[in-house]
Amino acid sequence: MAKFRLDEVDHQILDILIDNTRTPFTDIAKKLKISAGTVHVRVKKMEEAGIIVGSSLTLDYKKLGYAFIAYVGVFLQKTSQTKFVLERINEIPFVTVAHVTTGKFNIFCKIRAKDTEHAKQIIFELDDIEGVYRTETMISLEESLNDKKRLMHSIFKEL
Amino acid sequence: MAKFRLDEVDHQILDILIDNTRTPFTDIAKKLKISAGTVHVRVKKMEEAGIIVGSSLTLDYKKLGYAFIAYVGVFLQKTSQTKFVLERINEIPFVTVAHVTTGKFNIFCKIRAKDTEHAKQIIFELDDIEGVYRTETMISLEESLNDKKRLMHSIFKEL
Amino acid sequence: MAKFRLDEVDHQILDILIDNTRTPFTDIAKKLKISAGTVHVRVKKMEEAGIIVGSSLTLDYKKLGYAFIAYVGVFLQKTSQTKFVLERINEIPFVTVAHVTTGKFNIFCKIRAKDTEHAKQIIFELDDIEGVYRTETMISLEESLNDKKRLMHSIFKEL
Amino acid sequence: MAKFRLDEVDHQILDILIDNTRTPFTDIAKKLKISAGTVHVRVKKMEEAGIIVGSSLTLDYKKLGYAFIAYVGVFLQKTSQTKFVLERINEIPFVTVAHVTTGKFNIFCKIRAKDTEHAKQIIFELDDIEGVYRTETMISLEESLNDKKRLMHSIFKEL
Amino acid sequence: MAKFRLDEVDHQILDILIDNTRTPFTDIAKKLKISAGTVHVRVKKMEEAGIIVGSSLTLDYKKLGYAFIAYVGVFLQKTSQTKFVLERINEIPFVTVAHVTTGKFNIFCKIRAKDTEHAKQIIFELDDIEGVYRTETMISLEESLNDKKRLMHSIFKEL
Amino acid sequence: MAKFRLDEVDHQILDILIDNTRTPFTDIAKKLKISAGTVHVRVKKMEEAGIIVGSSLTLDYKKLGYAFIAYVGVFLQKTSQTKFVLERINEIPFVTVAHVTTGKFNIFCKIRAKDTEHAKQIIFELDDIEGVYRTETMISLEESLNDKKRLMHSIFKEL
Amino acid sequence: MAKFRLDEVDHQILDILIDNTRTPFTDIAKKLKISAGTVHVRVKKMEEAGIIVGSSLTLDYKKLGYAFIAYVGVFLQKTSQTKFVLERINEIPFVTVAHVTTGKFNIFCKIRAKDTEHAKQIIFELDDIEGVYRTETMISLEESLNDKKRLMHSIFKEL
Amino acid sequence: MAKFRLDEVDHQILDILIDNTRTPFTDIAKKLKISAGTVHVRVKKMEEAGIIVGSSLTLDYKKLGYAFIAYVGVFLQKTSQTKFVLERINEIPFVTVAHVTTGKFNIFCKIRAKDTEHAKQIIFELDDIEGVYRTETMISLEESLNDKKRLMHSIFKEL
Repeated sequence: MAKFRLDEVDHQILDILIDNTRTPFTDIAKKLKISAGTVHVRVKKMEEAGIIVGSSLTLDYKKLGYAFIAYVGVFLQKTSQTKFVLERINEIPFVTVAHVTTGKFNIFCKIRAKDTEHAKQIIFELDDIEGVYRTETMISLEESLNDKKRLMHSIFKEL
Repeated sequence: MAKFRLDEVDHQILDILIDNTRTPFTDIAKKLKISAGTVHVRVKKMEEAGIIVGSSLTLDYKKLGYAFIAYVGVFLQKTSQTKFVLERINEIPFVTVAHVTTGKFNIFCKIRAKDTEHAKQIIFELDDIEGVYRTETMISLEESLNDKKRLMHSIFKEL
Repeated sequence: MAKFRLDEVDHQILDILIDNTRTPFTDIAKKLKISAGTVHVRVKKMEEAGIIVGSSLTLDYKKLGYAFIAYVGVFLQKTSQTKFVLERINEIPFVTVAHVTTGKFNIFCKIRAKDTEHAKQIIFELDDIEGVYRTETMISLEESLNDKKRLMHSIFKEL
Repeated sequence: MAKFRLDEVDHQILDILIDNTRTPFTDIAKKLKISAGTVHVRVKKMEEAGIIVGSSLTLDYKKLGYAFIAYVGVFLQKTSQTKFVLERINEIPFVTVAHVTTGKFNIFCKIRAKDTEHAKQIIFELDDIEGVYRTETMISLEESLNDKKRLMHSIFKEL
Repeated sequence: MAKFRLDEVDHQILDILIDNTRTPFTDIAKKLKISAGTVHVRVKKMEEAGIIVGSSLTLDYKKLGYAFIAYVGVFLQKTSQTKFVLERINEIPFVTVAHVTTGKFNIFCKIRAKDTEHAKQIIFELDDIEGVYRTETMISLEESLNDKKRLMHSIFKEL
Repeated sequence: MAKFRLDEVDHQILDILIDNTRTPFTDIAKKLKISAGTVHVRVKKMEEAGIIVGSSLTLDYKKLGYAFIAYVGVFLQKTSQTKFVLERINEIPFVTVAHVTTGKFNIFCKIRAKDTEHAKQIIFELDDIEGVYRTETMISLEESLNDKKRLMHSIFKEL
Repeated sequence: MAKFRLDEVDHQILDILIDNTRTPFTDIAKKLKISAGTVHVRVKKMEEAGIIVGSSLTLDYKKLGYAFIAYVGVFLQKTSQTKFVLERINEIPFVTVAHVTTGKFNIFCKIRAKDTEHAKQIIFELDDIEGVYRTETMISLEESLNDKKRLMHSIFKEL
Repeated sequence: MAKFRLDEVDHQILDILIDNTRTPFTDIAKKLKISAGTVHVRVKKMEEAGIIVGSSLTLDYKKLGYAFIAYVGVFLQKTSQTKFVLERINEIPFVTVAHVTTGKFNIFCKIRAKDTEHAKQIIFELDDIEGVYRTETMISLEESLNDKKRLMHSIFKEL
């Protein structure tokens, strides 16, 4: 699959936006010594190419009462149920990430919960999805790093 | 630790911003039938309280040539090395998430790489950090879900 | 959930009672230089608040012929059976502790038996509960520590 | 090792005391239609024989802010360090139970903590004991059963 | 269960017989300076008490073309099937030892086979017993020790 | 390696001796309708060829106070230590079988002990051998089968 | 089973052919100072004896777009299904090797795929074979060695 | 990396050669209705492009006395030793395949040996390489499939 080609300007625009998506285009234009219209066109183009999928807030989940993070490995009865089970998992808002994986698990999820009791409820919900055979949970004692900005800067530097 | 109290208006503002952080405050004001100044004040307040930590773009990593995702479990020689090792991990931009965990691993990481060869290099870098005893890797065959918006909406509905 | 507030006097009373529940209230009163009535009121209050749940003897199980301790991890067919299985487990008096756990087991039990033969019978009883899929047993070679008093003193010191 | 022989009266006395250690000896005497002196003599005898080791309160740890229970498996570098490590473990009041075990772990502990953060500190303390090679933690989502009274009644019925 | 009491003479007789069961009683008598009749009586007594169960040859299996030894762990679907499965296992002459065990397996067997191909057939026979859910095999690269005589001598020295 | 060829007569002699090593040669001769001298010659020949290694008693270990059986998997630091460690293991009489194995363990042992406490001592002795890195123990709840006679009969039938 | 006896000349012919199967027989004849007819006869004889099964090209799979190698462990529901499942596996051309194994897996396969996505499809195909209970995948980060020539030379040197 | 483009003719030539590398070019030419010179040119081109790496015989290892196949997982002390250890492994001709892998092992090998005893020697050689921490072996009971021709045909069909 052919990759979209970002040039130096695209790269610099993204580099600014990933640190603060609300940076006004006029500020970006001034910094990069280009017109605000160019910024607008470039961002639009990257959105249309599907490079920029959207934007979101980074919230402090602890302050919102969601301090409990766990990883849940899901074993299925048959892999043919993968798609169906993923749709059920998708209905549980406390599951924020889900991967089809190699190794011992069929599906590997990340959940955010209020506390042990709440985590238990979510795990039980996962366990009760039809086709789920067993789950295994690993609890996070500390989220030490959760930052895609370093990756993005690194990607843009290289392109 | 006392939790910050968000009222109905805060909640509605967040609910709009998490879907698009670039929504102009005047649009939010119109929708919620409040003044743009109020929106501004509320957002500022939530930023100062540390609820809103920042904002970021959601990019399509596949289109950027980073289609390979793996989870790497890290075993340490001594847990007293945890802090030091996390600092070293933090220097590898391809590690986007790292947790101190219970269970068999001491630290659990998520990495994004270009391909198998690149993943090997990153895993070898992790393995060569002083204090790291062994690593175990689980490869993602498909990222089926990566979405915190459903969680956020669910949190705000409940608050 | 709001925690019951224990003051310095409550703390000192508990600190005495956890070492010997049969200490007469008059002795406690003398030690703490308060009236026996106060001791009585405070204990009653802590019982009503559910802080003090009861009292029990510490017996030497080895001397009673129950020297064999094992931990049994229980795998269920479906977590929806957890409640039902716990009720069945509750009917086996030789199971003294049972937890719903994360990790590889669904339920984790502690059993006390007379010897290997008796342990086998108890494990077989657990295995034959409807909904139990498999069990895994870890045998204690020596109970080196079983003492909640240090914890209690530590809690009261801190409160 | 010769087992102490308890007769029917000892058994009935224990049966009452394990439900409430504070039951006055006169009440026990009345119930069993024996003299209070006899109760006193029998209890003394069982204490001297080491059958009754002591008495303690049953407290509600959740209400005291200690809702977090975990089991920690400890791997040693050499089993010759077992005694030394157990002495160090004994200095951590949040470890309430410790066993020398067969199977994958050398020592198996139960800990009670305030929350995830506190548990992390305790696990790190265990991990940093000299001679401890690694630990593995299993977190309790619910303490469903913790009751030695059923066992005791069962023992006395049988004797 | 009361243990049969062996005296010094019994012990010395056993000590000779375990090294060579065919030692004539007259030789034993001469060595121990007792009458052959006494030897006869003692052996008979130990047979009746069930201490001596029988005698057997020690053969060199390698020379007989049975050089392949493996340990097979058997998982059952339900432990209630243990007795039935053991009866089936008992019909396979190449299984020389079988134990009901704690830990991950329900039943643990030792097999002797001619070669890899023969071992495969035996393992498949075990796997096809009704109630057997799965097996796991560990192959012996060398039988370094198979000797109960040292144990017996050690027992008799101590008695 | 050329295998020793047993003929029909050898086979019949062994078949009788494996059930009772003390069967007089005259009895065997009568049964097989050959001379006692022939029996003698044949047994001698099989001993010289190393087919018959010796003979031993089968004792009831439970009656002798050795009811506790466990399997101990030994991990070495380096396989080059295998020979040395096997020599140390050979000095512990309570280890009756030891194999160099494939799979997770380097050496796999069977031990017979008096009880849990005794087993602990033996396991600790194994663990303290220089070069032994860790051990894992699996306890037998019941020795359901320990019989090489069926194997021997099966071998002779086939030859 | 009697092994075919290769003489020095056979050995030298094979030693040349395993490095290049297309070496003309006349070249081999010249090198070994024998007639081309002899080479022809010997090769024919080794083909008829089933020593030489065939010949094949060694291709560079990376250059052909098949850079992804994985090992897949297959668990069956019953080993009696082994033959049937192997026939199904045989229909998937991307599985290049399959073994019936001891240890945790029933069947162990090697697959070659184009990329992660393709590997997922192949694994799912394996998982959906009737009788397959679960699979576990281990991904190759680098094929460092794949060479049977050293083995063959070593065999011929020794014969 | 740009892939070499094979056309329909290349494909047909390979398709014939992978089944028998000794097929004379004139036969191929006749079959495909092209000149022998063209066949020659195409094969040369594919060799120069590195698509065709070489050719080899397929031998029957069982008939050559090498019936024992095992997979050996190698754990390293540090991944930085990977290259060094692979060089050592490369000196053991009985290791025919070696991969750097994800999952529990650092390196995963396939070995071919004469029998159990020979396999033990090879495994011990692997274990004694400097930097190798432990190995785990899985023994093949039957090589059910070892055939890259189906893969090759499938690749050429698709190109």
